[in-house]
Amino acid sequence: MLKSGDVMENENPSAWKKIMVKVPGTSANCGSGFDCLGLAATIYNEFEFKFLEEKRVTISAVGEGADTIPNDEKNIVWQSARLLLDRAGTDTINGVEIHMNNRVPMSRGLGSSAAAIVAGLIGANAAIDNYFTRNDILKFATEIEGHPDNVAPAIFGGFTVSVVEKNQVQTFSFLPKIKLKLIVAVPDFPLSTKVARQVLPKTVPLKDAIFNISRASMLIAALIEGKEKFLPIAFDDALHQPYRTKLVPGMEEVFAAAKKSGALGVTLSGAGPCLIAFSAANKKLENAIASEMVQTFKKFDVQSSALILDLDTRGAVVEAVS
Amino acid sequence: MLKSGDVMENENPSAWKKIMVKVPGTSANCGSGFDCLGLAATIYNEFEFKFLEEKRVTISAVGEGADTIPNDEKNIVWQSARLLLDRAGTDTINGVEIHMNNRVPMSRGLGSSAAAIVAGLIGANAAIDNYFTRNDILKFATEIEGHPDNVAPAIFGGFTVSVVEKNQVQTFSFLPKIKLKLIVAVPDFPLSTKVARQVLPKTVPLKDAIFNISRASMLIAALIEGKEKFLPIAFDDALHQPYRTKLVPGMEEVFAAAKKSGALGVTLSGAGPCLIAFSAANKKLENAIASEMVQTFKKFDVQSSALILDLDTRGAVVEAVS
Repeated sequence: MLKSGDVMENENPSAWKKIMVKVPGTSANCGSGFDCLGLAATIYNEFEFKFLEEKRVTISAVGEGADTIPNDEKNIVWQSARLLLDRAGTDTINGVEIHMNNRVPMSRGLGSSAAAIVAGLIGANAAIDNYFTRNDILKFATEIEGHPDNVAPAIFGGFTVSVVEKNQVQTFSFLPKIKLKLIVAVPDFPLSTKVARQVLPKTVPLKDAIFNISRASMLIAALIEGKEKFLPIAFDDALHQPYRTKLVPGMEEVFAAAKKSGALGVTLSGAGPCLIAFSAANKKLENAIASEMVQTFKKFDVQSSALILDLDTRGAVVEAVS
Repeated sequence: MLKSGDVMENENPSAWKKIMVKVPGTSANCGSGFDCLGLAATIYNEFEFKFLEEKRVTISAVGEGADTIPNDEKNIVWQSARLLLDRAGTDTINGVEIHMNNRVPMSRGLGSSAAAIVAGLIGANAAIDNYFTRNDILKFATEIEGHPDNVAPAIFGGFTVSVVEKNQVQTFSFLPKIKLKLIVAVPDFPLSTKVARQVLPKTVPLKDAIFNISRASMLIAALIEGKEKFLPIAFDDALHQPYRTKLVPGMEEVFAAAKKSGALGVTLSGAGPCLIAFSAANKKLENAIASEMVQTFKKFDVQSSALILDLDTRGAVVEAVS
C-alpha cells in the first residue's frame, strides 16, 4: 500500500505499454485437501492489456465463453486491475483495452474466474512497475474471489497449500518429485460453485474430518517426497465429493473407471463438474484413462471431452511488455 | 504369516538369547494432525528379553510406573510378544523374562503403552530372526493399540503420517529439514485416553475440519521442505484441543506463554496431559520456553516438570543380542 509521501514511479501515461499476461487454469481441493489444496495445469488464458489515462473500458475475447464475458466496466479482469490500482493509490490509469484468448473452460471447476482475477491484478501491477509482491497479489485475489483455492495456484504454479487465518492467507507452493499427468474429463454442462456449496452440510462426522486430515497429510508428504505407492489412498475424500455426487451424473463410476485404468487418484475438480485423474507420467496411461472417463460419462448421458495436461510450474507470468 | 509348509528357522530354544530393545516415547496428533500425525522423541524405554521354552512369565521394572506394571501374563509387553509369536505359528516359545527400564512418563500422552507394545513385538520378532517386516509390526501394533498414532512413530522414528483404510494402516515417516527442539511440560497428574476421548463430539463444524486439513497439510509441507515461517500457523487445532482444555488446567495459558517465549507451535501431546512446544534448535530458546511453561502451570496449581528433547530419527531398535 502506498504510504503518504511515497512516490509512484512510472506513472507517466506515455510509458504504459502493451502488457501480455498468461495465467494457468487450476484445480482446487485435490480430493482430500478440501478448501486448502490446489494445483495449476498447463492450460492457459492469455490477456493483452493496454492501460489508458482516459476513462474507457474496451474488452474483447476469443475462445472459451467469449460470448458471455461482460465487455464493460463490470468485467472481472478490469475490476481486479482497478482494485490493485486503487490500493496503490494511483489515479492516472482510468481505463483499459483488454483482449483475451481463453482456453480454460468456464464454470467447469478449472479456475477460469481465478485466472481472470489474477490476470487483472498481475497486468495492472506490471503497469505500475510491479509495485506489489506476489503475496500482495495473493491477498487481493483472495479478497476478490472469497477463497484462495484457485487464485493461489494460478499465482504461484505447482501444487499449493493455503491456510486462511483471520482473513490473512498464507500459501506454500511446491513441485512434486513424481511427474504426474493430469487427465481432465470436461462435461458439457456448467455447474455453479454456489450450488455446489449449498449441498454441503454445516457439520460433519469427526471421523470424516480425520479421514481427510490423514489423507491430505499423506498426499502432501507423498508428493513432496515422491512416494508414489502412498498416492492411491491419499486423494480420497469424505467431506465434499460424496455430497456432490448427485450434481455430476456418473461421477463415482468415472472415478472407478479411471482407477481401473491405472489412475493413482481421481477427484472432483474444484466444485466440479470436471473430474481430474492423476497418473504417473512414466506409465503412459493417460490416453487410456481419458478414453475410459469419457466413455463412462457417456453411459450416464453426459457428453464430455478430455484434456491431458501437465502440472504448470510457474504460475501467472507477464509474457511480454512491448 | 506362516503359510502351511513354511519352516521356521532358528526355533531351537538353545539359540534364544538376551535381546535388548530400545523404544522411543512418542507424541500423537501434533495439533492439527489429529489422529494421523505422530513423532518420536529422544526419551527411551529399554527392554531386556529372555524368551523361554517353559511356560513362565517373569517381569521386573525400574523407573517410571515400575510399581504399577502387571508382572504376570497380563503384561502388555508379553501379550504383544505372544501375539506376534502366535501369528508366526511358533509354539516353542512359551514364556519370558523381561526387565524394563522405563523413562517415558506413564498416562501422560507420551506413548508409554505404545512403547511397551512395540517392544514386545520387536523383541519377539528378533527372537524368530526378524520373520516379520516393520510394516507387519505396524499392523500388529495398531491392532493391539487400536490406532496407529503412537505405535507408528515408535516403530519408524521421525514424524509419521498414518492413514487407516479398511483396517489396514499405511505410515509414511520423514525427518524435517528444520532441526526442532521439543519442550515437554509433564504435569504431575495422569489422564486416561478414554476420558480424553469421551469429551470429543461426534460431529464437528465443516469449517473446523477445513481448519485442521489446511494446517496439517501446511505442517507436513513446511516440515519436509524446511520452511520455518509457515510453522506458527501450522500446529493449531480446532478439532480436539478446544474440547480437552477443561481436562488440563492452564492449558491455553501455557500455550500462550510458550508462544510468547518463541515457540513455533504448542500442542497437547496425544490425549494429554503433557503439552509439547516446538522451537527451532538454532534459536536456543528451549530452556526459556520450558521455564515459562512450568511457571505458568504453577499459576493454575499444576505441578509439572519439563523435558527438553530432540526428534528421534530411528524408531525402535534392537540394541543388542547376546
